[in-house]
Amino acid sequence: MKIGVLGTGSVGQTIAARLAGFGHTVVMGTRDPAATLARTEKDRFGNPPLVEWLAGREGVTLGTFEQAAAHGDLVVNATSGDVSLEVLRAAGEANLAGKVLVDIANPLDFSRGFPPSLSVCNTDSLAEQIQRAFPAARVVKTLNTVNASIMVEPGQVAGGEHTMFLCGNDASARATVRALLESFGWRDIVDLGDITNARATEMLLPIWVRLYALQKSPAFNFKLVR
Amino acid sequence: MKIGVLGTGSVGQTIAARLAGFGHTVVMGTRDPAATLARTEKDRFGNPPLVEWLAGREGVTLGTFEQAAAHGDLVVNATSGDVSLEVLRAAGEANLAGKVLVDIANPLDFSRGFPPSLSVCNTDSLAEQIQRAFPAARVVKTLNTVNASIMVEPGQVAGGEHTMFLCGNDASARATVRALLESFGWRDIVDLGDITNARATEMLLPIWVRLYALQKSPAFNFKLVR
Repeated sequence: MKIGVLGTGSVGQTIAARLAGFGHTVVMGTRDPAATLARTEKDRFGNPPLVEWLAGREGVTLGTFEQAAAHGDLVVNATSGDVSLEVLRAAGEANLAGKVLVDIANPLDFSRGFPPSLSVCNTDSLAEQIQRAFPAARVVKTLNTVNASIMVEPGQVAGGEHTMFLCGNDASARATVRALLESFGWRDIVDLGDITNARATEMLLPIWVRLYALQKSPAFNFKLVR
Repeated sequence: MKIGVLGTGSVGQTIAARLAGFGHTVVMGTRDPAATLARTEKDRFGNPPLVEWLAGREGVTLGTFEQAAAHGDLVVNATSGDVSLEVLRAAGEANLAGKVLVDIANPLDFSRGFPPSLSVCNTDSLAEQIQRAFPAARVVKTLNTVNASIMVEPGQVAGGEHTMFLCGNDASARATVRALLESFGWRDIVDLGDITNARATEMLLPIWVRLYALQKSPAFNFKLVR
């Protein structure tokens, strides 16, 4: 499958690498590819510059947000929640129309420090904002409730015995994303229904960030026991 | 221990019965005990009237909110979140001062139908509102993330292999509540720290109510896997 990944941070890199590993062709989108490639210093988390990460990596190339979205039959929003709408506008409404748009971002608000609050919640969500802004895109919310490395390799925690949620208005888009999640190794996938359910999964972030601080590790998830 | 349980609904009944079963002496508080005892019809959920439920029940008596709070060395807020502050004011600030106040309520707002939203969240919580309104009470938030019968008997689901959170500003109050939870059968108890963490546990309700609808049963919980 041709996949566009918007965002070149650690989440975008992790998703892109895993998808390329399955033989998908991935274009990662960034605001200014030349500027991104010119960076030679480590990022603020100590990760190597993208130019090093891309070197010799099969199946992944770098483009603009627009080029990444135009390339993908499926597009992943792996940007920070606070810039997601702006990035998607740069990607272009026409490039998203009819596409499965997998929203894995969270509307975290760090303006008051740690732990972050949410910039939208309760009676609305980032995923709904995205769906309203891009009505022809088939938005599916998922993966936002775990760390990037667990997103693409759930077996890293408790042999994969834990739960992933998804939701979205388009049933066939949800089925496409479920298959993608299964390819990552997810076995317990709970389909919540329409995109308003993203309120509930984005509202899992307040407990996630606290558990992350408490456990001093992002290697955890919830298993729905029933 | 002498325990006051505010609220005579199914949550209050379930908690009171279990506590009395352990030999604690429980006074359940209601607005107007005479009126409550005079009711002979089933409630809106089909449960028998309280007068039947109380008949021959060892260790549980009915009183006013004030009497229940005055009786308890530990007081449980088992009221609906929308009336909790009003009920606690009726219970009386002096009757709560210095007491462990276990807040198991949720600020659910059903004004827009099902699923409910929260009437307070994100940068505040019901538990924090209660702690601010009753600064001398030692508020501990817990049990709000599961159904009443699972609160007091976690082994009903997956042999008890799932997680309960607690938080509150007073470490000795948290230790008291942890011991109470252990007596119920809880084994995986995560102490999140101060009462601001109630934002996170109350924000688990949006996913809870959706899973309840999806599963057509309240017999589930989350297990934190790490």
